Amino acid sequence: MDDIQNILKNRRTIRSYSDRDVDRDLLNDILEMGCRASTTGNMQVYSIVVTRDSDKKKELAPCHFNQPMVTSAPVVLTFCADFNRFNKWCLAREAVPGYDNFLSFFTAAIDALLVAQTVCVAAEAAGLGICYLGTTTYTADKIIEVLGLPRGVVPVATITLGWPAEEPEQVDRLPLDAVVHEEEYSDYTNEKIDILYREKEARSDSKLFIAENNKKTLAQVFTDVRYTKKDNEHFSEVFLKVLKNQGFL
Amino acid sequence: MDDIQNILKNRRTIRSYSDRDVDRDLLNDILEMGCRASTTGNMQVYSIVVTRDSDKKKELAPCHFNQPMVTSAPVVLTFCADFNRFNKWCLAREAVPGYDNFLSFFTAAIDALLVAQTVCVAAEAAGLGICYLGTTTYTADKIIEVLGLPRGVVPVATITLGWPAEEPEQVDRLPLDAVVHEEEYSDYTNEKIDILYREKEARSDSKLFIAENNKKTLAQVFTDVRYTKKDNEHFSEVFLKVLKNQGFL
Repeated sequence: MDDIQNILKNRRTIRSYSDRDVDRDLLNDILEMGCRASTTGNMQVYSIVVTRDSDKKKELAPCHFNQPMVTSAPVVLTFCADFNRFNKWCLAREAVPGYDNFLSFFTAAIDALLVAQTVCVAAEAAGLGICYLGTTTYTADKIIEVLGLPRGVVPVATITLGWPAEEPEQVDRLPLDAVVHEEEYSDYTNEKIDILYREKEARSDSKLFIAENNKKTLAQVFTDVRYTKKDNEHFSEVFLKVLKNQGFL
Repeated sequence: MDDIQNILKNRRTIRSYSDRDVDRDLLNDILEMGCRASTTGNMQVYSIVVTRDSDKKKELAPCHFNQPMVTSAPVVLTFCADFNRFNKWCLAREAVPGYDNFLSFFTAAIDALLVAQTVCVAAEAAGLGICYLGTTTYTADKIIEVLGLPRGVVPVATITLGWPAEEPEQVDRLPLDAVVHEEEYSDYTNEKIDILYREKEARSDSKLFIAENNKKTLAQVFTDVRYTKKDNEHFSEVFLKVLKNQGFL
């Protein structure tokens, strides 16, 4: 278990990649491992779009707010909830699919995300570095256009993939008992919150982050700058419209 | 890379567990590895509820349609999208959270699912067996009651965990090119569907499955028996109501 322990415990997100390409056979091998992840009823209601072409990456870049990894990484992988293939199979087999609803979207999203994360572990085990782009759900409508995703298909996660050209510090995490509950959910008092966030708030990088953003507390950097109510509400509308247009609402 | 390759390539879902308990330190170690998974903006908007108590498992069992793994596994893990802790932190730090919307739910669900899948890989690497219960989203309202999940928290995945007492055959998967698209989504013609599903449909277990369910095609087993339109629509309503009640819609 030691090797995998090291990989999982010491992992860090990689945003800077060397020029070395990712071999096609290696990538296929990694994707095969990803597809061994659990899938609802073995329906495999997901698709993975592999982007290597530099023009295509340039088209995708604005969908990810021009984060430089999109064009600098050798490979971009877009993981999609996909009932289109399954529906087509049903229709070709005298079966009437009933997957044009929210539950089916969420089922397919779970499938896609389990594959995505398994691909990440497999990639990191091979020495590659990955970065998730949280922008996928914000601009799903534009990604659908760029990648030509038909009805029944919704992008839910994107990762950039390549050989690491950096070795960043590992970022912090809350203590395990902040996120784990025994038997029942044990809700958080203000005192408990103070204890659980103490270490995070005491970090010099947190303090720098507050100062850079001209805020008083670290939490304000999230609520006022990084993930604002206004943005969240706007992108909620966009994403719900995508679900409707793609036939899930 | 060999060890992890073996683990990821040869994995299979385990539904039968030995009496041997899962050591608390081992479980914590696995959960720690899970929490190293990528998380949106390092917000860690998820929680994990650990169920070991047999009475609690009995309470959970009907939420999972009494699948026997719930009571027979030494450990049941419920992974939740959780903005409650983050919101409480914000409110205690003069920050006004804006996470009562669909995008925030989906962000937290992604976080929770990446942790869940990393926990599964770590568990399997330690020799444990896991099984995902697809019932979590169907009965989220009941799980919320049993586990006492407050507003801001929604269960999105459950796994049972234990030492394997079986070595089942590995189940089939579609060929890789069924789910992978190069540069753009390449939609499926009926001919392509025939090719991609040929091997699956020719399997003796598929034929048995059709016969057992008195159906004409394998697809009909899914549409008419396992994942029907009626059920999907019913559970969509339940789940959307849960999102509303928990403050995300």
